[in-house]
Amino acid sequence: MTAASPAGADPHPITGEVLARLASTPDARMRELMTALVRHLHAFAHETRLTEAEWFAAVSFLTAVGQTCTERRQEFILLSDVLGLSMLVTDQNHPAAPGCTESTVFGPFHVPDAPRFELGADIGGGAAGEPCWVQARVRGPGGEPVPHAEIDVWQADAEGFYDVQRAELGHAQARGVLRADADGAFRFWTVLAEAYPIPTDGPVGRLLEATGRHPWRPAHLHFMIAAPGYERLITHVFRRGDRYLDSDAVFGVRPSLVADWIRREPGVAPDGTRRDAPYWTLDFDFVLNPAVAPAPARPEEIPE
Amino acid sequence: MTAASPAGADPHPITGEVLARLASTPDARMRELMTALVRHLHAFAHETRLTEAEWFAAVSFLTAVGQTCTERRQEFILLSDVLGLSMLVTDQNHPAAPGCTESTVFGPFHVPDAPRFELGADIGGGAAGEPCWVQARVRGPGGEPVPHAEIDVWQADAEGFYDVQRAELGHAQARGVLRADADGAFRFWTVLAEAYPIPTDGPVGRLLEATGRHPWRPAHLHFMIAAPGYERLITHVFRRGDRYLDSDAVFGVRPSLVADWIRREPGVAPDGTRRDAPYWTLDFDFVLNPAVAPAPARPEEIPE
Repeated sequence: MTAASPAGADPHPITGEVLARLASTPDARMRELMTALVRHLHAFAHETRLTEAEWFAAVSFLTAVGQTCTERRQEFILLSDVLGLSMLVTDQNHPAAPGCTESTVFGPFHVPDAPRFELGADIGGGAAGEPCWVQARVRGPGGEPVPHAEIDVWQADAEGFYDVQRAELGHAQARGVLRADADGAFRFWTVLAEAYPIPTDGPVGRLLEATGRHPWRPAHLHFMIAAPGYERLITHVFRRGDRYLDSDAVFGVRPSLVADWIRREPGVAPDGTRRDAPYWTLDFDFVLNPAVAPAPARPEEIPE
Repeated sequence: MTAASPAGADPHPITGEVLARLASTPDARMRELMTALVRHLHAFAHETRLTEAEWFAAVSFLTAVGQTCTERRQEFILLSDVLGLSMLVTDQNHPAAPGCTESTVFGPFHVPDAPRFELGADIGGGAAGEPCWVQARVRGPGGEPVPHAEIDVWQADAEGFYDVQRAELGHAQARGVLRADADGAFRFWTVLAEAYPIPTDGPVGRLLEATGRHPWRPAHLHFMIAAPGYERLITHVFRRGDRYLDSDAVFGVRPSLVADWIRREPGVAPDGTRRDAPYWTLDFDFVLNPAVAPAPARPEEIPE
């Protein structure tokens, strides 16, 4: 059992008492998780000789993180993100398959049931920012088109805010759901994604400050792409040249996800419309990983 | 640096990215704590192959813990208590000194500025329970009296509730502050402490249930004792014979803290008053640990 690997060479005697108490946890996976959690939590406190004042500061911090959460804000996901835990969990559950698009963090700003759009529509909804035309294809690893994939896209506006961060806004902006065509292609207008700081007005912002870290994320578009027979893909496309590509506050950048976003002069856009102002284009291919049948449960995963 | 000890033999590559980012944390102790935290948090997720669903369940659980906290309830302390973390932190910050009374958990039910009482008073304040006379002495390790120590005492009533858990109650019950006399002695009436379950109507209760654990604490009186020249003592006195002494939900029992609480027939009590109903007595000696001058800061504790 991997949970039994030592978290420290010389555990505190109380750790053994707690582990013994957990041994009767009915569900084997719950037992494995709680055992590993207690081992590491205790080893952390023991190795660092955590003081009572530090313990209380941690209790107060975690309480504040919970109390900062609302229907529109998830500060614990943000905490997980800035500690790199979200990216680690994403990565180990979606190891890069050869030739397939890599996954990255989901983030706290997705909204279920976003408005649906026809292909070629403008999902901006009045969001601030320069216009941007996105055209993309969804393929399988052999290059075969993946028809009719469902595409969920969301992003921040030019001021660095997602619509859900604007309390005064009564409608969606710069987010939407589209369905790719029979060739796996989809396209839409939106606004240009810009680098933005994650919310710093809560406890996670104070943690970043205390650790001397900036809160910035490089400009990106979020995508969640689902199609029968393929693993669901949750990823971003980043803008090449962004100054924060090497220091993303949430560790989400993968080189394969960085693409050229090209600035275009006024004229006829790829969808045949005439643009009187400069606009941007992004062209990207997503490659989905075929779904595998679920592996049979390991014996220790079957609840007793 | 103890924080550098390996938390797992084969860390995930993302762990290294996060640790590198933390290397510029200005305060050395903060850097040590965050480094150890990230190592253990990542090793936990990596060793257990934490799934995205499990990660989200953990985020939801911690959010609920934070949102269960109010001015009168601290669910994160309760979580720390049932995971044995509170007792570990207590223990390593107050290692048992030879001949001195051991420390145990503070718990979430202490209230600052509890009412003050004269020696011999009844601190029960109308709390439900059989009467109990407590007499005790505060001494140093050589047996010398510790005069005029300040004694903070608090406990649950016969129904298992602390006063702060009774929303309808407008005043303190079964808690108070006394000052020992010149010989280090103190005495008071209260109600008999009984075993009680920790609050199970929140997320911590659900965690106990999922791990097959009961929520009970053996009967105890809380004491916080402070006197100049001695280390502040935070401890309990437990009732010998309690059925939960071997399975305290918060791991707080130390054999040296278990004492005989004796049931007495009606008659003249130790304070000379006549009792028409049975009552209990507890007699206990507390031995304080002399305070040592603060150790000089280690170099790595001095902020840069």
